[in-house]
Amino acid sequence: MNTNKYLAEMIGTFWLTFAGCGSAVIAAGFPQVGIGLVGVSLAFGLSVVTMAYAIGHISGCHLNPAVTLGLAAGGRFPVKQIAPYIIAQVLGAIAAAALLYLIASGAAGFDLAKGFASNGYGAHSPGQYNLVACFVMEVVMTMMFLFVIMGSTHGKAPAGFAPLAIGLALVMIHLVSIPVTNTSVNPARSTGPALFVGGWAIGQLWLFWVAPLLGGVLGGVIYRVLSPEPTGVVEGVKAR
Amino acid sequence: MNTNKYLAEMIGTFWLTFAGCGSAVIAAGFPQVGIGLVGVSLAFGLSVVTMAYAIGHISGCHLNPAVTLGLAAGGRFPVKQIAPYIIAQVLGAIAAAALLYLIASGAAGFDLAKGFASNGYGAHSPGQYNLVACFVMEVVMTMMFLFVIMGSTHGKAPAGFAPLAIGLALVMIHLVSIPVTNTSVNPARSTGPALFVGGWAIGQLWLFWVAPLLGGVLGGVIYRVLSPEPTGVVEGVKAR
Amino acid sequence: MNTNKYLAEMIGTFWLTFAGCGSAVIAAGFPQVGIGLVGVSLAFGLSVVTMAYAIGHISGCHLNPAVTLGLAAGGRFPVKQIAPYIIAQVLGAIAAAALLYLIASGAAGFDLAKGFASNGYGAHSPGQYNLVACFVMEVVMTMMFLFVIMGSTHGKAPAGFAPLAIGLALVMIHLVSIPVTNTSVNPARSTGPALFVGGWAIGQLWLFWVAPLLGGVLGGVIYRVLSPEPTGVVEGVKAR
Amino acid sequence: MNTNKYLAEMIGTFWLTFAGCGSAVIAAGFPQVGIGLVGVSLAFGLSVVTMAYAIGHISGCHLNPAVTLGLAAGGRFPVKQIAPYIIAQVLGAIAAAALLYLIASGAAGFDLAKGFASNGYGAHSPGQYNLVACFVMEVVMTMMFLFVIMGSTHGKAPAGFAPLAIGLALVMIHLVSIPVTNTSVNPARSTGPALFVGGWAIGQLWLFWVAPLLGGVLGGVIYRVLSPEPTGVVEGVKAR
Repeated sequence: MNTNKYLAEMIGTFWLTFAGCGSAVIAAGFPQVGIGLVGVSLAFGLSVVTMAYAIGHISGCHLNPAVTLGLAAGGRFPVKQIAPYIIAQVLGAIAAAALLYLIASGAAGFDLAKGFASNGYGAHSPGQYNLVACFVMEVVMTMMFLFVIMGSTHGKAPAGFAPLAIGLALVMIHLVSIPVTNTSVNPARSTGPALFVGGWAIGQLWLFWVAPLLGGVLGGVIYRVLSPEPTGVVEGVKAR
Repeated sequence: MNTNKYLAEMIGTFWLTFAGCGSAVIAAGFPQVGIGLVGVSLAFGLSVVTMAYAIGHISGCHLNPAVTLGLAAGGRFPVKQIAPYIIAQVLGAIAAAALLYLIASGAAGFDLAKGFASNGYGAHSPGQYNLVACFVMEVVMTMMFLFVIMGSTHGKAPAGFAPLAIGLALVMIHLVSIPVTNTSVNPARSTGPALFVGGWAIGQLWLFWVAPLLGGVLGGVIYRVLSPEPTGVVEGVKAR
Repeated sequence: MNTNKYLAEMIGTFWLTFAGCGSAVIAAGFPQVGIGLVGVSLAFGLSVVTMAYAIGHISGCHLNPAVTLGLAAGGRFPVKQIAPYIIAQVLGAIAAAALLYLIASGAAGFDLAKGFASNGYGAHSPGQYNLVACFVMEVVMTMMFLFVIMGSTHGKAPAGFAPLAIGLALVMIHLVSIPVTNTSVNPARSTGPALFVGGWAIGQLWLFWVAPLLGGVLGGVIYRVLSPEPTGVVEGVKAR
Repeated sequence: MNTNKYLAEMIGTFWLTFAGCGSAVIAAGFPQVGIGLVGVSLAFGLSVVTMAYAIGHISGCHLNPAVTLGLAAGGRFPVKQIAPYIIAQVLGAIAAAALLYLIASGAAGFDLAKGFASNGYGAHSPGQYNLVACFVMEVVMTMMFLFVIMGSTHGKAPAGFAPLAIGLALVMIHLVSIPVTNTSVNPARSTGPALFVGGWAIGQLWLFWVAPLLGGVLGGVIYRVLSPEPTGVVEGVKAR
């Protein structure tokens, strides 16, 4: 039973990273009819909508170390489960990056130097945003993401809609912030591609762990103060 | 308890303004793969969908002085709460504009003179629509917005879906009217960026208070006449 | 009480026509960041999603003579109500076209000769599709639209979701068929703009009454045969 | 009664193929305002959302041989029904391709040699992806599609949302993989257009049967192991 939770988180984070980063690498800039940043935003968000309905009842469908830590800070997730959840998520994201590499390199013109959907700041920000802007954006977006997650899975929120609210929040976050950091708000999603790109992507990876985790904790704590959950620990989407 | 309502409105309006205006300033015109007006429309609307599931049970999730006044006119919101709600909303929108300024100015080429997502008419309408067209558009769109809000939170409407109906109405409103006024239907959202742009944006701000508030009252009253709510006062999404 | 049904249909069809045609006239081709046919498709469909949650419990939210006739053919709507429903819908669509004309003509460069979102075939098909292709497309699309409406409001379908299913069906229909006929599937929506454009638009209007009404009846009858409704007459979204 | 299931699958697969392939052939590349790959992705996915609410209670709304086989492998569908379901699906897809041919050929410039929305690999992959990349993509995407279908129709998932989860999964799959194989994950959808294009499209059709069926079985089995369904056989969306 316990093992199934971790497998579900691994498969779910695989799906998020493969779909989101895959849409960016394969389809965003396709000539004439490419999906652009709207399509990439939808791919990331819909991966969460779909997976939350599929595995919400198994693991709560965090798919993101910042969500796991934020829910724990918000009093909704047991602290002792944090480490195994995060390990499963990172493994899933690495597997996704490996598979994406296999497929994407099956066409001429593929080049890891184009970024492979890695996150970056400064010279490696898609719009050359500086470190402060990037750090603040990641903190604020992850904070608000957790705020929405805490709220939509609250006992007084309408049942069954949390996966939509959470996934559409991720769509919206990407619509705003891809030009700034290529959008992380998820350290696991950032780690997968960075391992393949290496160099600068590894060197900048610290920000995409520190800022989302900080933002996640802030969001969890703020919502907890604003509207305490009377019904005890619930685990992400699971309890919905 | 009371304080939490106002904090929720402040945070929620922060989210709407930061996400909506942020998508316009940062991502709409990004080279090659920019999100365009479809993406901006989605960002505004999804901010409401997500926040309505998160704080609907706390404050009703108005996020907009025209919604607050319209719901009061429609008999769904206590008159004495109007002022504190509106104050909280405006403060949230100003905070959003400040944060957006901090982030957006972190890249070369940022220029407040490009508009910073302010609303305008005449020479400052994105498509140079004249004053009458702009005024009428804002009145009609806010009127219909309140009509949808009143209807989808009515006691006979299916429970739980109001956040989707309301947020998707805001998507649709933006799809139509951005070229006319840059789309307000929300005086708080208009006030945030205008304070930073100053000059013409402040000078034209009156329209984006008068027209949405007028439209909101019309929508609330028309729906109330068409289908009176038998179950007493409900507060926006809260009662769903 | 009876009067409210008709007012709701009038307001709802106003919303559909104003939003849908408005997005096409005002925003589809806006320079650089225009919403294109994806945005127009979303505007038409979301007008139905939002209005169905708002007035579904009042009138069933048909907003379309082909829906009204098709539901009657499918055994879900009383025959004696067909005429007043259709009259209310056409009046709402004409009001929408008038308002859109007022607003759209408030910017330089507006020209009715660009089509004003009218429907057409042959030389007036956006992609110059011939009469047969246009006629068949309108019949098939309206038939399938009614099929989805009959099915998603069936007593065995999950409650509350019909507005989403129906509105998203309209999004999908537009995604496919705008280049063929500019997409009608709704004689009221076609009539509004045609009255302002006059000439060819009036001359071709017959097709956008005959084909959708025929398709609507086919869809209603086919679904009725496939899965009879055991619970008696229900009126569109109303019974959900 | 039994016959109605098959008719529903035929009509539903007709809808999926006509809408999805139709959007690609007719609207994707329309000058200036074409819907691009985002629009095509939405058309495919929304056809499933809408049809699942319409016929879910009749047939389970598979619309896809890989779904039928995968659900059987997952223990959710009776083996003896596999063959008639698949036959009905293929017939519906062929009818859709025939109708699309009739309509699309009603405009000058139509040419089957442009592909007619057929699936392909290598030289016939939209982005010239090689055989291995195409095969792996189809297997993985269909596997994850079935994973989402199995999960969102599981007895512990929230009732009523499965059509959204499943249809939005299909949107997401297309957002990622159109440049690779033009996206199949559905042998029936691939067969329809291939019969009209002939030649290479027929020659490559094997992959779009083998890979999706293999992926579907993998997804059904993996989810079954991860979270066994305690409530006996359910048939796709039907039991929701």
